[in-house]
Amino acid sequence: MTNEEAPPGLPLPLTGSTRVFAIVGDPIDQAGSPALFNQAFRRHGVNAVLVPLCVSSGALGDLLSLFRQSQNWDGLVITVPHKIAMSTLVDELGPAARLTGAVNAIRKQSDGRLLGENFDGEGFIRGLAEKGHALRGRRILIIGAGGAGRAISHAIAGENAAEITLVDQVSQRADQLAAAVKLENPTLQVRTVQLGEERAQDYDVIVNCAPPADHATHLNLSMASQQTLVVDIVLKPAWTPLLAEAKALGLSTHEGIHMLSGQLKALLDFFRLPH
Amino acid sequence: MTNEEAPPGLPLPLTGSTRVFAIVGDPIDQAGSPALFNQAFRRHGVNAVLVPLCVSSGALGDLLSLFRQSQNWDGLVITVPHKIAMSTLVDELGPAARLTGAVNAIRKQSDGRLLGENFDGEGFIRGLAEKGHALRGRRILIIGAGGAGRAISHAIAGENAAEITLVDQVSQRADQLAAAVKLENPTLQVRTVQLGEERAQDYDVIVNCAPPADHATHLNLSMASQQTLVVDIVLKPAWTPLLAEAKALGLSTHEGIHMLSGQLKALLDFFRLPH
Repeated sequence: MTNEEAPPGLPLPLTGSTRVFAIVGDPIDQAGSPALFNQAFRRHGVNAVLVPLCVSSGALGDLLSLFRQSQNWDGLVITVPHKIAMSTLVDELGPAARLTGAVNAIRKQSDGRLLGENFDGEGFIRGLAEKGHALRGRRILIIGAGGAGRAISHAIAGENAAEITLVDQVSQRADQLAAAVKLENPTLQVRTVQLGEERAQDYDVIVNCAPPADHATHLNLSMASQQTLVVDIVLKPAWTPLLAEAKALGLSTHEGIHMLSGQLKALLDFFRLPH
Repeated sequence: MTNEEAPPGLPLPLTGSTRVFAIVGDPIDQAGSPALFNQAFRRHGVNAVLVPLCVSSGALGDLLSLFRQSQNWDGLVITVPHKIAMSTLVDELGPAARLTGAVNAIRKQSDGRLLGENFDGEGFIRGLAEKGHALRGRRILIIGAGGAGRAISHAIAGENAAEITLVDQVSQRADQLAAAVKLENPTLQVRTVQLGEERAQDYDVIVNCAPPADHATHLNLSMASQQTLVVDIVLKPAWTPLLAEAKALGLSTHEGIHMLSGQLKALLDFFRLPH
């Protein structure tokens, strides 16, 4: 069954037999997954719904306990700020989650154990590729070394970038991530800078992975080359201050929604759903 | 905003801002609330969704703990077999929940405390009235003294029935309910019968409140008067064996869905939603 015209966010009519998925974060208003997943469910005739759930860090244990015991609740998508904490709470980690120490999807295996995996990096790369942006040979600044920053840094490192520079408002986090990326990619140039010492003219691609509340960069974009690509993974607002400034300066921009749509198919595969 | 043609079960498109409700039971496939609530949400332009959640008794504590801590999860509808257990787990009970010791709806109050109330009785009476069935002066058999049976017995007792007879596969439960109903309605005739000793010819209205799995009655409906009304609150199948037999014998019948639609407005009021 296909219906290409399914509007964003609209599932099939719900019944008592509808299977449940949730995207969990705090806040959750900005989440794009309800729009994308429910549209995909309807398009493919899947009797399922994905709901947003706003849950603070203290409730993650209760969440997983209930999830384990709910017979029609099949999957979790995890977003800020819970990706790192969830990597310590599930029973098993997939390869990308092990590498990044962050989880953005959880499902039950046949033996009931919870498997966490991370598709942020894959989604980020796919989203760029779908818009015609390649990373090979580029000098890349990554702002934010949290859950998403980790996943994206490792993924970018696999794309033969010329050089990766990391910055985080907690400089130790950037240092740790740089060491981890270097360990996996010994020949790659990986460095860190202190917050406020980033120089926009030193990078071909600037990627913001920090949450909107963190004022994680003091970049002077007016110094950037006109070929610079500015990327923000923040979903709401779609035009973040960083992207708006880049656009006003005539630079190329790439919005957060592309990373999400880039990983939708991978997430549906993980949940063993059609796409 | 109104859209009278909203099909059963279809909410508005979901976003990160969608408010969440759940109906909780075990099993849950039979639940009619997802169809009715989501239709009402869409019809009235409410950005909310009600999902089915299949949760066993051992997980109710985790469920309420997560519900308390989820900032966009506003309400619970409770169904079989959790109505009685939930009455001991919430912080406060409304008047019908106190009377019946069973809860079928839970919401957060402004101070965060959980309020449980019971609309089964009100919904049952309204559903009968909407189909033109009155109970005044009738002799009524109620099969099943669980959560729903309790709520319905108390509600029927308030409708000036001539006589109420209770039966349950656990005869002590029927005795306790009879005593409670008598206490509230001292002038009403209330009696119990042992399972297997019900005589269909002794009642004007026969109401099954027992779950489908319980073989709670051995009624010989062929002995019933042709004026007998046979009611089943079971939702799935809509034509339960009891109703199918009654229909085959030419008796009047009343299906479970009417109780649910009879209480929808009361539940929406309780959740402070438009209807």
